Amino acid sequence: MPRRNTPDHTIDAFHRGGFFLVQPAHKGHRAGMDAMLLAAMVPDDFSGVLADLGAGAGAAGMAVLARCAIARATLVEKSAEMAGFARQSLALQQNVRFRDRIEVLEADVALAGAQRRAIGLQDRSFDFVIMNPPFNSSQDRRTPDAMKAEAHVMEDGLFERWLRTASAILKPDGRLALIARPQSLADILKALANRFGGIGIVPVLPKPEAAAIRIIVTAERGSRAGLSIWPPIVLRDGKSQDFSVKAAALINGEASLTTDN
Amino acid sequence: MPRRNTPDHTIDAFHRGGFFLVQPAHKGHRAGMDAMLLAAMVPDDFSGVLADLGAGAGAAGMAVLARCAIARATLVEKSAEMAGFARQSLALQQNVRFRDRIEVLEADVALAGAQRRAIGLQDRSFDFVIMNPPFNSSQDRRTPDAMKAEAHVMEDGLFERWLRTASAILKPDGRLALIARPQSLADILKALANRFGGIGIVPVLPKPEAAAIRIIVTAERGSRAGLSIWPPIVLRDGKSQDFSVKAAALINGEASLTTDN
Repeated sequence: MPRRNTPDHTIDAFHRGGFFLVQPAHKGHRAGMDAMLLAAMVPDDFSGVLADLGAGAGAAGMAVLARCAIARATLVEKSAEMAGFARQSLALQQNVRFRDRIEVLEADVALAGAQRRAIGLQDRSFDFVIMNPPFNSSQDRRTPDAMKAEAHVMEDGLFERWLRTASAILKPDGRLALIARPQSLADILKALANRFGGIGIVPVLPKPEAAAIRIIVTAERGSRAGLSIWPPIVLRDGKSQDFSVKAAALINGEASLTTDN
Repeated sequence: MPRRNTPDHTIDAFHRGGFFLVQPAHKGHRAGMDAMLLAAMVPDDFSGVLADLGAGAGAAGMAVLARCAIARATLVEKSAEMAGFARQSLALQQNVRFRDRIEVLEADVALAGAQRRAIGLQDRSFDFVIMNPPFNSSQDRRTPDAMKAEAHVMEDGLFERWLRTASAILKPDGRLALIARPQSLADILKALANRFGGIGIVPVLPKPEAAAIRIIVTAERGSRAGLSIWPPIVLRDGKSQDFSVKAAALINGEASLTTDN
């Protein structure tokens, strides 16, 4: 992703120049492959309202709207600084085509009930929720910088709180996609139970014969369908450092990946 | 697997004729690929004591001992008729090399505490437990024949009871492998929690771009290591009906698959 450097932020191209993101240059969570793979789980013909929970600078939500021409999105981000980067991204001339379809909401995804509604997340108001939650467990080595730590350190019960919110704000047959580390699978399935069904798991392998470094999990609100495990996305399948054809298409917004049968 | 028919049972070759199994001809659960893949999760150099829980006619346990020359096994099977087939298999001249290393125990895996110890399953007495539990949920269409139904119909809480037994009878650092349907993953992870760690999941795909039809789950008793998802076993990778090279090697006892890093 080519980058133009400025003192405190960068402007990074995604989808081979299809849209651009203003991001903190030296601190905070910088978006990349994970956000693009997550966005690829929304079907091409999606035309509803999307919530990107823990949106950071808005990479995943913008990637969905860059591909789904009439969809709308709300980016929900707790950090005022990251929400500010999302607003700067939307102000870029290169992103003008979805500027009017995206709203930035500075709010804590973990809020519940009346507090959640008060900050603007209404019950049963979204067709699709995506989330790329903070992914380092609190037992992992702490990252030095505070904003980066906020984005990366997983608190106990995070999936329970975030999926409670996702379930509440989705319409009855709304869909969910999240990207996380395999280590979180048991917590994710526990938090999905009794809220979501039709769970699909897509392992993301760095190369053909290596263990997954990420899992993408999809689900449908209120569904009673069983769990499925899908063929993996293999990021690099040869000896070169290039992405595989399939991974590149997903990361660059040229294909979507659905886990419906 | 070539078969010689007789009125009420068949004698089936496994591991390309490496060992033979006496099985009911027309009813009951007949062993095949699942049992062979499960057995492949035990490393070649395993030399301890194995328990095959819900062993049926003993396919998986015998497959381990056919490959691991000095290991010993206890086959635990509730059905008197299936346990009888296991004993007939051990009596075959072709299986003589592991006859003295296998014990058949007619017992219900779901028993707990003193009852379980009384029937011969002592606490902390096994190095490895394998299980291929009944896999149809009670909501599925019932199979017509009673013995087959007993082998295939999953009761609620089955994984909780079977993994409670596995945890109890394993030595402190003992290992577990099971094969199940993907739909059971949440139940399995819930029952493993607080008993096992270092969980590894291997999806079994019928072909490269299809959802998994089975999962193999491995774990270590008392481990605190995180969960991993491994590259899938792809059963058939071409247009022919032949097994892939990797699947054939595992099914025929020519390779084992470990999920240690």
